[in-house]
Amino acid sequence: MEKEISQVVIRRLPRYFRYLEELKEAGVERISSQELSRIMDVTASQIRQDFNNFGEFGQQGYGYNIEYLYNEIAQILGVNTPHTMILIGAGNLGGAIATFINTSRLPYRVIGAFDIDSNLYGKTVGSALIHPMEEMPRFISENHVDIAVLTVPRSAAVTIAQTLTACGIRAIWNFAHVDLPVPDGIPVENVHLLDSLMKLTYNLEEMKGEDHD
Amino acid sequence: MEKEISQVVIRRLPRYFRYLEELKEAGVERISSQELSRIMDVTASQIRQDFNNFGEFGQQGYGYNIEYLYNEIAQILGVNTPHTMILIGAGNLGGAIATFINTSRLPYRVIGAFDIDSNLYGKTVGSALIHPMEEMPRFISENHVDIAVLTVPRSAAVTIAQTLTACGIRAIWNFAHVDLPVPDGIPVENVHLLDSLMKLTYNLEEMKGEDHD
Repeated sequence: MEKEISQVVIRRLPRYFRYLEELKEAGVERISSQELSRIMDVTASQIRQDFNNFGEFGQQGYGYNIEYLYNEIAQILGVNTPHTMILIGAGNLGGAIATFINTSRLPYRVIGAFDIDSNLYGKTVGSALIHPMEEMPRFISENHVDIAVLTVPRSAAVTIAQTLTACGIRAIWNFAHVDLPVPDGIPVENVHLLDSLMKLTYNLEEMKGEDHD
Repeated sequence: MEKEISQVVIRRLPRYFRYLEELKEAGVERISSQELSRIMDVTASQIRQDFNNFGEFGQQGYGYNIEYLYNEIAQILGVNTPHTMILIGAGNLGGAIATFINTSRLPYRVIGAFDIDSNLYGKTVGSALIHPMEEMPRFISENHVDIAVLTVPRSAAVTIAQTLTACGIRAIWNFAHVDLPVPDGIPVENVHLLDSLMKLTYNLEEMKGEDHD
């Protein structure tokens, strides 16, 4: 019965969720699409269109009910659904991500970490124990693991992604600076830090250029 | 004389850059838009359109010259231009980002870090010294700083961004889970980790749904 929602709309949902959370925490109960439009810098008609994708979200004439909207979007995004994760690559970035997840209020949990550096075995990142990389397949088969967080160098990422998918991983959150070739049906979400930084430096140089014109 | 390039094209440039770097390192000298299309999973006509934005990139009939293309895009993205950065928030994530930048091959450099935790003062992250937050304005006025990397909690981020812009920062790389209100002319690039993770869990839940249909 569910309507297919486009990835473009999905990409916008976490941002709506973030603003609704802030409004909810500030004690606001209702908001019009015009007001939400103003604070989010998105057109009111886009907001109405986006929310129409999910059926009846509050009564539009009285403004949207924030708590209702917040809960519905949380439900859609799976934010209230517990998810188990493993970390592949327990270096600085991996450690920061594991700590970030395991100290967040979300019901997501990094339950194990894997690395090739034997000095790390037995230590923890964000309370998750670091295991030898070779134990990863058995760990996945013996535990329910939804998501692998990949924070390994580019050169290792593709092979590890192939192992992960062969082991039946359900999704990959990829921080390696490479696009992963995975079968259809296994969602991959990329966080390419260097791509983001390059976009920033491009825009910075453009601004400098304009200053001198 | 420069053509205005749309942000949509800019967003795609770092990915082209990444693939061209790999091809260059693999010793490939020329590539057709068809072949690049195949490995990047983008249409050949989009590639040709995108590259047309930057004038004459190699001779199309013989395929694009990879080294030339790589250097041109590096130039456009400002990858070869040294940039100085400061880190605001020297926790786990901030430390990982500073280390990542200062150990990368890019001529970007985190030259100072700031935090409110006095236990961190005098320590380093990625070889950058951690200073008290109050010293940040003076540091910016006494040093050439291009970019502030913001890895502080959401609650502190907006006020700090206002201080940064008042101090004359040129760009912000924002990891705080909030959109920053900064004046026009100061580029902000957001890395919203939770938004990315929510998008992944949404797609994961969708896949599960399809499995059961």
